[in-house]
Amino acid sequence: MENTRVLLKQRPAGIPKADDFAWVTEPLPEPGREQILIRNIYCSLDPAQRGWMDDAESYFPPIELGESIRATTVGQVAASNHPDYQPGDYVVALTGVEHYAVADAVGFTSKVDPSFVRSLTNYLSILGAVGLTAYFGLLEVGKPKAGETVLVSGAAGAVGSLVGQIAKLQGCRAVGIAGGPEKCKRLTDVYGFDTAVDYRGKDVPTLAADIKAACPDGVDVYFDTVGGDVLAAALANINDNARLPLCGMISQYNATEPVPGPTNVWQLIAKTARMEGFLIRDFLDKFPEGIGQMAQWIAEDKLVFQEHVDEGIENFLTSFNRLFSGDHNGKLILQIAPESV
Amino acid sequence: MENTRVLLKQRPAGIPKADDFAWVTEPLPEPGREQILIRNIYCSLDPAQRGWMDDAESYFPPIELGESIRATTVGQVAASNHPDYQPGDYVVALTGVEHYAVADAVGFTSKVDPSFVRSLTNYLSILGAVGLTAYFGLLEVGKPKAGETVLVSGAAGAVGSLVGQIAKLQGCRAVGIAGGPEKCKRLTDVYGFDTAVDYRGKDVPTLAADIKAACPDGVDVYFDTVGGDVLAAALANINDNARLPLCGMISQYNATEPVPGPTNVWQLIAKTARMEGFLIRDFLDKFPEGIGQMAQWIAEDKLVFQEHVDEGIENFLTSFNRLFSGDHNGKLILQIAPESV
Repeated sequence: MENTRVLLKQRPAGIPKADDFAWVTEPLPEPGREQILIRNIYCSLDPAQRGWMDDAESYFPPIELGESIRATTVGQVAASNHPDYQPGDYVVALTGVEHYAVADAVGFTSKVDPSFVRSLTNYLSILGAVGLTAYFGLLEVGKPKAGETVLVSGAAGAVGSLVGQIAKLQGCRAVGIAGGPEKCKRLTDVYGFDTAVDYRGKDVPTLAADIKAACPDGVDVYFDTVGGDVLAAALANINDNARLPLCGMISQYNATEPVPGPTNVWQLIAKTARMEGFLIRDFLDKFPEGIGQMAQWIAEDKLVFQEHVDEGIENFLTSFNRLFSGDHNGKLILQIAPESV
Repeated sequence: MENTRVLLKQRPAGIPKADDFAWVTEPLPEPGREQILIRNIYCSLDPAQRGWMDDAESYFPPIELGESIRATTVGQVAASNHPDYQPGDYVVALTGVEHYAVADAVGFTSKVDPSFVRSLTNYLSILGAVGLTAYFGLLEVGKPKAGETVLVSGAAGAVGSLVGQIAKLQGCRAVGIAGGPEKCKRLTDVYGFDTAVDYRGKDVPTLAADIKAACPDGVDVYFDTVGGDVLAAALANINDNARLPLCGMISQYNATEPVPGPTNVWQLIAKTARMEGFLIRDFLDKFPEGIGQMAQWIAEDKLVFQEHVDEGIENFLTSFNRLFSGDHNGKLILQIAPESV
C-alpha cells in the first residue's frame, strides 16, 4: 500500500501556484509507540493554511518545506498502538493533505461518532473549528446583548454565516458584508441576516457610508474575518464600547509585501472600544458547551450551514484557491478517499 | 474689565498656524443661573486639543469656529450664582484659553485645595487628566502583573513618563520609546525606566528589532500614545495575551490626509491580544482612589514628574506647537494670569 501526499515545495508568493507544491507517493508511514495510523477521508481547507505556508511567526510554526500541507482531517484509524483507539474508529486530527497520516493519540486527535451527525464532514464545519470560531468569537469575545447591532465581514463564508445566525438567536440585529449581489442575497434569504452590504469596488469612505445606512444605530459588535479596508470602514461606524473580535485577515494572506494597516484605528480611542484577536484553543475547556449548544441548534433546525466538498487529492490546489476567488458556497472540504473501504 | 480669549478662526491643516486663531478682547461674560465666573490662571495644553480643532467625530464635539480653544483650566472664582462656590475658591474646569470663563457648577467643574499640592499646576498634571490617564490606562486597561514587561511610547511625555514609573511600582520591567538620545537618557536617568529605545529615523522593521533587543522576554503590555509606525513595531513584539491600552495617536493629529493604519494588526490574532481605547471618563467612579494613590506616591517621593510652564495668552500658539516639535520637558501648561490678584 502506498501513501500520496501534498507537500510544500516552496513558499508561495501571493496566490499559491502548482509549482509551490509536490504530489509525492511513498510507502505507508508506521505509527510509533502510543501513536495511530489514520486513513484520511476529508481535509478541511481553511484560510489559516495560507498563513502557515509563509515563513512567519504565528500561533503555529510554519509548514516546513518538504512537509505535508497541514490540515484538520476526518479519517478512520487504520492501525493503532494506543489502547483507546481501534482500527475502524473515526477521528478528527490535525494531520495533513495526505492519504495516510501518523498522529499522536492525544492533543489535537479525538474520536468522533458518525451516528451523531448527518455527515462526517460536519466535524470539519459546524461542529469543528468553523462552528466553534463563530460560537466563541461572537459570544465570548463579542459579548452581544439583545437589541445590539452585530456586523460581520466575510458573512457569506463558513464562519461569517454562522456568526450572523447566532447573533439573530441572541436577539441582535445582524448585518453582513460580502462580495457581490449573489452572496448578499444569500445573506438575507438563506442565513436570515437583517440586511447585507456589498463591499466590492468601494473605497473606505463609500463602504463606511453604506455600512452606516445598513446600521442606523451604529455597530456594537464587529466580527472581522477580513481585515484591511473593510475593517477600516467598520471602525468608522462603531458605537461607544464596541467589541471587535478578530478572527482572520484573509484580505492580507496573499500579500507579497507589507500591507498598510487599517485606517480609523483612532476610533478605538474615540469610542473606547476593544479590538481583540482570539483563537478557539483559548476556549478548550468550554468546547463541550459550545459543541452541545451548536448540536442542539442543528437539531432544532435553527442553523443553516453549507459545505462545499471537492474531490481528489490531485485537485488540492484548485480547491484551495477557491478560498481566495470566493468560488465556493460554505465550508470548503476536500474529500481524498471514500468514507469506508 | 475686559476678557481676552483665543478663538478658533479656521480649522488647521496640519500643524496649527497663527492664521487659524484670533486673539479677541471683549467685555466680561455674565454667569447665568447657578453658574460661576472663573478667572483662569493656568491652561492645560494637550494633544487632544488638536483633535478638537478638526471637524471630526470624537468623544467631544469639535470646537466650533468662533469658539474659544477648549482647555482644562485652573482658576479662581470671580463671581458665583451657585451656593457651593464663593469668590476666591480655586477650581479646575473645562473652559477655554480665555482670561475669564463662565462655567456650570457641576459636571467638569470641581473645587480644589491649593494647600494639598506644591503648586496649583499639579491639578493639570499629576493629579489631573495626565496622571489619571497614566494610572487608569496602565492599571485598569493594561493590567500589568509583577515581572511582566511594560513598553511605553511617548515615554518622555507627561503621560508616558508616569506610566513607566507606575509600572516599576508594580514590579514590572519598564521600557520606554522616545525621540532622540537626550530624551532616552532622561527615561533611564530621571524616570527609572530599565532601558530606552530611540525611534527616530527608523523604519518599522528596524524599530521592531530594537524593541526586541530591549524586551528580550517580549512585550506584555504596550501603552500607546503615538499610533502609526511605533504601534506597528510594538505589535511585532507582543506576547501571547498582551494588552495594548491606546491613549492617543499624536503621530496622526496633524495629518492632512488619511493616514495608513499600523501594520502588524494581524499579531492581535496570532497572539490573541487585546487593543483597547480608553478615556478616563470611564473611570469617574474610581477617581478618588486614583487621586489618593497618586497623592500618596507623591508624598513618598516615588514619582518624578515635570511641568513646563509657559507664560502669556499671546504665546498660546508657540506654546501649543511644542507638543508637536517635542520642545518641552513634562506636562505643558500655559499661565495666562497671576495666581492671585
